[in-house]
Amino acid sequence: MRAVYLDHNATTRIDPVVVEAMLPFLGESFGNPSSHHAFGEAAFSAVRKARRQVQTLIGAANDSEIVFTSGGTESDNTALLSALAALAPRNEIIVSAVEHPAVLALCERLEAEGRAGVHRIPVDRCGRIDVAAYEHALCERTAVVSFMWANNETGTLFPVETLAEKAKAAGALFHTDAVQAAGRVPIRAEETAISMMSLSAHKIAGPKGIGALYVRSETPFYPLILGGRQERNRRGGTENVPAIVGFGEAAERAASRLESEARRMKALRDRLEQGLLGTVPGARVNGDPTARLANTCNIAFEDVDGDGLLALLAREGIACSSGSACSAGSMQPSHVLQAMAVPASHLGGAVRFSLGRDNDDSDIDHVLAVLPPLVMRLRQPAGARKVARAG
Amino acid sequence: MRAVYLDHNATTRIDPVVVEAMLPFLGESFGNPSSHHAFGEAAFSAVRKARRQVQTLIGAANDSEIVFTSGGTESDNTALLSALAALAPRNEIIVSAVEHPAVLALCERLEAEGRAGVHRIPVDRCGRIDVAAYEHALCERTAVVSFMWANNETGTLFPVETLAEKAKAAGALFHTDAVQAAGRVPIRAEETAISMMSLSAHKIAGPKGIGALYVRSETPFYPLILGGRQERNRRGGTENVPAIVGFGEAAERAASRLESEARRMKALRDRLEQGLLGTVPGARVNGDPTARLANTCNIAFEDVDGDGLLALLAREGIACSSGSACSAGSMQPSHVLQAMAVPASHLGGAVRFSLGRDNDDSDIDHVLAVLPPLVMRLRQPAGARKVARAG
Repeated sequence: MRAVYLDHNATTRIDPVVVEAMLPFLGESFGNPSSHHAFGEAAFSAVRKARRQVQTLIGAANDSEIVFTSGGTESDNTALLSALAALAPRNEIIVSAVEHPAVLALCERLEAEGRAGVHRIPVDRCGRIDVAAYEHALCERTAVVSFMWANNETGTLFPVETLAEKAKAAGALFHTDAVQAAGRVPIRAEETAISMMSLSAHKIAGPKGIGALYVRSETPFYPLILGGRQERNRRGGTENVPAIVGFGEAAERAASRLESEARRMKALRDRLEQGLLGTVPGARVNGDPTARLANTCNIAFEDVDGDGLLALLAREGIACSSGSACSAGSMQPSHVLQAMAVPASHLGGAVRFSLGRDNDDSDIDHVLAVLPPLVMRLRQPAGARKVARAG
Repeated sequence: MRAVYLDHNATTRIDPVVVEAMLPFLGESFGNPSSHHAFGEAAFSAVRKARRQVQTLIGAANDSEIVFTSGGTESDNTALLSALAALAPRNEIIVSAVEHPAVLALCERLEAEGRAGVHRIPVDRCGRIDVAAYEHALCERTAVVSFMWANNETGTLFPVETLAEKAKAAGALFHTDAVQAAGRVPIRAEETAISMMSLSAHKIAGPKGIGALYVRSETPFYPLILGGRQERNRRGGTENVPAIVGFGEAAERAASRLESEARRMKALRDRLEQGLLGTVPGARVNGDPTARLANTCNIAFEDVDGDGLLALLAREGIACSSGSACSAGSMQPSHVLQAMAVPASHLGGAVRFSLGRDNDDSDIDHVLAVLPPLVMRLRQPAGARKVARAG
């Protein structure tokens, strides 16, 4: 069966060139970068090269601003907790209502334990941040603001550069989860007021289990994971050398084709989106119509059970998602779509298509051929489902 | 030049069979285990298999007791912080003076911030824990005890089963850093009173960047890294599937040849040790003469600069360590050897040889031929160095 992978915001296939770069470090170049012998030195140099590649991807001023972590979630947790420790007695956090669970779950715990007050800034029906509410919440008690660069479910882009300036003016630190944005939209960290930025390799054709936290030079910092002196005392634990090397290679490749890939993604995505809107009655796109990742299409089908649709698509070889993979397993509707006030008629029928390097026109053709009849089929017993929903 | 790697306590070369097992997950089986489609399901199954392989290695009762982390340091940090949160208002920690920096650095921070009181239990000249001091420190304020199973620098084994019983009787949780012990000595977690145990893959011919925390079923638990619902809500972040698969494979292989490898290591190690003691005057072994990892020889040469010796050995292709790689870069003498009251004449001249799967008799021959003359050479200007040391 034809396999069409349209779930690149969940994870991506590693670029074979990236695997190629990693293999020596899964083989004879296995040293510990902290060891003072040839095995260690080879590993040390490889980590340094990768740090510069990641630095370049996000336009950081200095490679020492890159702290390697185990991934986006650790980076998000580290940023928020570090900021709270550094800016005490400031003890308030401002986030958007549509942040990733890596930010929201931590905020819930901090709030429940009385360690921080949390302001959740609402978004409008297009997923755009309520800037007035943000400005109202910002005050001399704000320790850190955390707004994602691109939303994982809808692709909506927040104007983080502008939002960061406001935080800076209020004396607060500004963190952005750029896990979905880095490698997909241009980032020039040096030219912004962003204090910290979370990155992940496996969303940009790099390996899983590796990410980074950008920490601007003057930003006070408290490590989350303490141990050896790795990462300039900012993250203990033997460096994951093969994964770091892979991250660096993936970052360099993403940077080199960022613009051409974005154009290609947008053309494919728009064809998919227009095709579905044109053939399936009662379909609507969730997200900002203009400021949106080129690869992401979150589309909701009226009076359709999204999980049922996903299952039928999977039987046709089409892999996509109902929300973020991270909250799969929960049966609640997406917190992102709820925050956007997506109407009840559409809330349960949302599907996220997220495109990537391997996709081409034939994949779009396949979805456009397969999906519309499946929606019609699921709508057959619509009356029964409507009764159930009302109950 | 012949390369002889004798630094397996720092890190190990991945077993090619382990890499083989990982490769599909660095290729076409790239799914996110949380995704509900074929790509995700393949990854999910692979993680489940690996969890059982790690369970088997440490004799845990249930595979749900294994929480995958990014490595030993994260596991150590998670265990201590979780125990403090779970057993509040108990707020004391008991550790040995020779724990890994992943435990000691965290304890220092907790103490400095007034979040915990820390008892550091001394060891004797052989590195053996002072049981009376431990019993004296244990009380109704003890939240958690953390004693490593095997010391990374000397290989000394603590009687953790007995030590854990005492903690249990005092109502405290017991954590052990078993990073150096797992796969090298038999572990039957189920039959002990151990609450939590830290593990790492890259010390047993598995990949870097992956470890686990064993959390006994009834143990209350607070995650360190919050995000998605991965690892039964105990560790957020997309699972590092290739590394988890590699860890599982490495665990299975280590378990299957644990006894035969331990015998082989001991024979090689003893020949190295006896050979050096017999040819180099003023050499002494640091560590417990009986309860010690079979692969580890920490040997100190009187009136020799250990870093100089390491550099000369490196030029002969011999890779070993002066202490733990994690504290390399610091110029302080090893905290482990200081705690053992190694005399000043020997403190600076300690070298750790740690053997592994790839070593054989010819490696030992090479060290026995190369090292003794280097020690003699370094001792030439001994008078000058003695003066400098006294100053």
